[in-house]
Amino acid sequence: MASTDNEHLVRSDDSQHPANVICELCRKFYTLGWVTGTGGGTSIRHENHIFIAPSGVQKELMKPTDMFVLDFSTREYIRKPPTLKPSACMPLFLAAFTRRGAGCCIHTHSQWAVLVTLLVERDIGQAAPFEIELLEQIKGIPKGPKRQGNLGYFDRLQIPIIENVAHEEDLTESLEEAMEIYPDTYAVLVRRHGIYVWGDNVHKAKTQCESLDYIFQLAVEMKKLNLPWTSDGKSGLTDG
Amino acid sequence: MASTDNEHLVRSDDSQHPANVICELCRKFYTLGWVTGTGGGTSIRHENHIFIAPSGVQKELMKPTDMFVLDFSTREYIRKPPTLKPSACMPLFLAAFTRRGAGCCIHTHSQWAVLVTLLVERDIGQAAPFEIELLEQIKGIPKGPKRQGNLGYFDRLQIPIIENVAHEEDLTESLEEAMEIYPDTYAVLVRRHGIYVWGDNVHKAKTQCESLDYIFQLAVEMKKLNLPWTSDGKSGLTDG
Amino acid sequence: MASTDNEHLVRSDDSQHPANVICELCRKFYTLGWVTGTGGGTSIRHENHIFIAPSGVQKELMKPTDMFVLDFSTREYIRKPPTLKPSACMPLFLAAFTRRGAGCCIHTHSQWAVLVTLLVERDIGQAAPFEIELLEQIKGIPKGPKRQGNLGYFDRLQIPIIENVAHEEDLTESLEEAMEIYPDTYAVLVRRHGIYVWGDNVHKAKTQCESLDYIFQLAVEMKKLNLPWTSDGKSGLTDG
Amino acid sequence: MASTDNEHLVRSDDSQHPANVICELCRKFYTLGWVTGTGGGTSIRHENHIFIAPSGVQKELMKPTDMFVLDFSTREYIRKPPTLKPSACMPLFLAAFTRRGAGCCIHTHSQWAVLVTLLVERDIGQAAPFEIELLEQIKGIPKGPKRQGNLGYFDRLQIPIIENVAHEEDLTESLEEAMEIYPDTYAVLVRRHGIYVWGDNVHKAKTQCESLDYIFQLAVEMKKLNLPWTSDGKSGLTDG
Repeated sequence: MASTDNEHLVRSDDSQHPANVICELCRKFYTLGWVTGTGGGTSIRHENHIFIAPSGVQKELMKPTDMFVLDFSTREYIRKPPTLKPSACMPLFLAAFTRRGAGCCIHTHSQWAVLVTLLVERDIGQAAPFEIELLEQIKGIPKGPKRQGNLGYFDRLQIPIIENVAHEEDLTESLEEAMEIYPDTYAVLVRRHGIYVWGDNVHKAKTQCESLDYIFQLAVEMKKLNLPWTSDGKSGLTDG
Repeated sequence: MASTDNEHLVRSDDSQHPANVICELCRKFYTLGWVTGTGGGTSIRHENHIFIAPSGVQKELMKPTDMFVLDFSTREYIRKPPTLKPSACMPLFLAAFTRRGAGCCIHTHSQWAVLVTLLVERDIGQAAPFEIELLEQIKGIPKGPKRQGNLGYFDRLQIPIIENVAHEEDLTESLEEAMEIYPDTYAVLVRRHGIYVWGDNVHKAKTQCESLDYIFQLAVEMKKLNLPWTSDGKSGLTDG
Repeated sequence: MASTDNEHLVRSDDSQHPANVICELCRKFYTLGWVTGTGGGTSIRHENHIFIAPSGVQKELMKPTDMFVLDFSTREYIRKPPTLKPSACMPLFLAAFTRRGAGCCIHTHSQWAVLVTLLVERDIGQAAPFEIELLEQIKGIPKGPKRQGNLGYFDRLQIPIIENVAHEEDLTESLEEAMEIYPDTYAVLVRRHGIYVWGDNVHKAKTQCESLDYIFQLAVEMKKLNLPWTSDGKSGLTDG
Repeated sequence: MASTDNEHLVRSDDSQHPANVICELCRKFYTLGWVTGTGGGTSIRHENHIFIAPSGVQKELMKPTDMFVLDFSTREYIRKPPTLKPSACMPLFLAAFTRRGAGCCIHTHSQWAVLVTLLVERDIGQAAPFEIELLEQIKGIPKGPKRQGNLGYFDRLQIPIIENVAHEEDLTESLEEAMEIYPDTYAVLVRRHGIYVWGDNVHKAKTQCESLDYIFQLAVEMKKLNLPWTSDGKSGLTDG
């Protein structure tokens, strides 16, 4: 197990080193209420290395040396902090890295995301995605991995919702299925749980996650004020 | 294009230099939820130079060297960071600088501003401005560019609302039209999008933006509690 | 006017010097949303000197040298920053210092305070005080200047509400009247405006202001959830 | 009384020393709104010493030298800051240390906790515990002191609620009774007051407290949106 104490993989003076970036992001996400308790997580793919926060740690206190590093080709951990456990999110993050070529994947327990999954289930249907339209912030989300540019103001945002399960790693199959049914999505909501958001790089994953959370919070407030999410009343019909 | 790397225009040890001030403001606005994702923006006019944050950057991480500088007379960029794109808000900020002699203009995606535009549309009418009265915080807003002092406690605050469009720069015409119809306003709401607020200088633009956001948040809470925005039931009739 | 540049009155390395304490408090209050725009204010009485923040400044950016100092005996300013205006709150702060022997008085524009004044007016009556009972946090408020200790869990909290007027200084008379009618109160709400809270010293004024704001926020949330503020339905009857 | 100025018990350069940890936690809890005014408190048991914050201090300003230290065997204070009073929470914290072997106990006045106790009373019954199910965040709470691991996604979370009383120390008996009736709980809600949460160590107490507060906030938002807390309509029946 000599390979597992590769401390040099996570030690760097460069603030942009993935191990440092994950710690900085997690501190920010803690303040936003996304990783309360030890919830949520973040992973960055950098060349052939995947950096990932451990399971069960206080996200705002994380240090670069707490980080796990996975070899992307062999799928083996090449660095394991001795007293920590790898995150159960790893297979879900891997789905974003392999199937979408993502450079970063963020998992939050945002309360707005959770509430949106409950509202869709009750008001539209269990099989329905979250849908909203005519909000400027929608322009913060790309059209899709094979399309140029971001969604426009007149485009409808659609985020699939999958059902939660007992063990986080067992979400992988339905997450991958949602990725297939919604080939353009950059995020998958998990009912009563939170959201997985990915992006081509850290900048995009983080700003897309923020834009979606903004939209979810707005959607919850709109529901409280009895304002509709879509103008044509067809919200809930899948067109993915 | 030698003219575009005028780094000296944005490098200064003076914390009050516009390039430094914009970075500081954007960090504050990020915390307030006004520039989530890469939304919103800020611009300062200083003598013949207009300083403006670029498009598509994380506002809380901005550095002075990210700043664009426009020559106010020639309308040409005299500094362009090579890897960044100028903000699509520029023509709207210019409207505030040229038509109102503003020294600073702030654009936010505040969720309270967005909700207020939806509530006015549903409850009063699409052509109606946002109107509220009898709140001490209204005294934070000036009477108008050609009038002395600020609004009083017994004055009604009126903020026009324009419809959002696909491309931000195409808002310019309706923003300018709203400025004409409401010659005393220091702000224009954009439906389902946010707000543009300007002021004679940075201090005024920032505090007026804060006062308006306070009022919008209060207005949304009042609506949840079924408290009316105006006492005479005439809210929604334009008297601009 | 030589007397007005007494800079030594506000310059000190002691973090507990009133001029430093006011700046520190105002930064905290800005974060709490109590002094948005340039709203609100804080004043400390120390021996024969009254320290007070100026009018119209950004509270989170205030410096000790921005502070006005009033001689408590002569009621004359012995320090005036040349470019700033004294706060219109001064006569109200003075009421707390003279009539209650307060050591510190805080004025906020808290949205929760404003909402509570609107809810009392609509649901109980314009002449009614805010009343609530059976909350542990009530124990953060003293029984009264002539009584020992703090309110108990089974005591009813009563905060008088006065009507807002056009000019802040003109609130003084009704504030003083409320102090007489409610001889035990440490705070007076101002309808559609905010609250004045005082205490024997900075520590008490600040923690009492926090406790009240906590109670107002809770009261607003209770109203949204249709939970009553008092158990006997007599809320609104003055027993002061 | 020489024994009471044992300053060495609370002075340490080690950031993980209990006296330093309590100060750091209290600063964080202040930001979360858990210890507004001088409410709430935190205690850590380290070997035979119990460290506890004093009564009536501003929690965000606390210093290690403000800390009381109790000898766990003799139940006597071996360090008392001369000008401060010990917290009335001590007997409640002791209950967690002695009956559950806790290493840390946190008491908050969280508004979400207070609202949840009111909603349970009105909608389910005064004798009912708070119950919720099918939320991922429930997995942040352990099954019980004699059981392995944490609750699962399909487990129902149950937190007992005790009635508030005039003097905090008099809550001890009903807190201990709740611990007996609910042998697996790591927290007890106090109606109209807040919550006591404990854990095997600081990390666990703090993250469990965060997870519970997240759940309470979500539960309040669910109630506003008319979303049920449990799926089978049996919420409120004690199965402890």
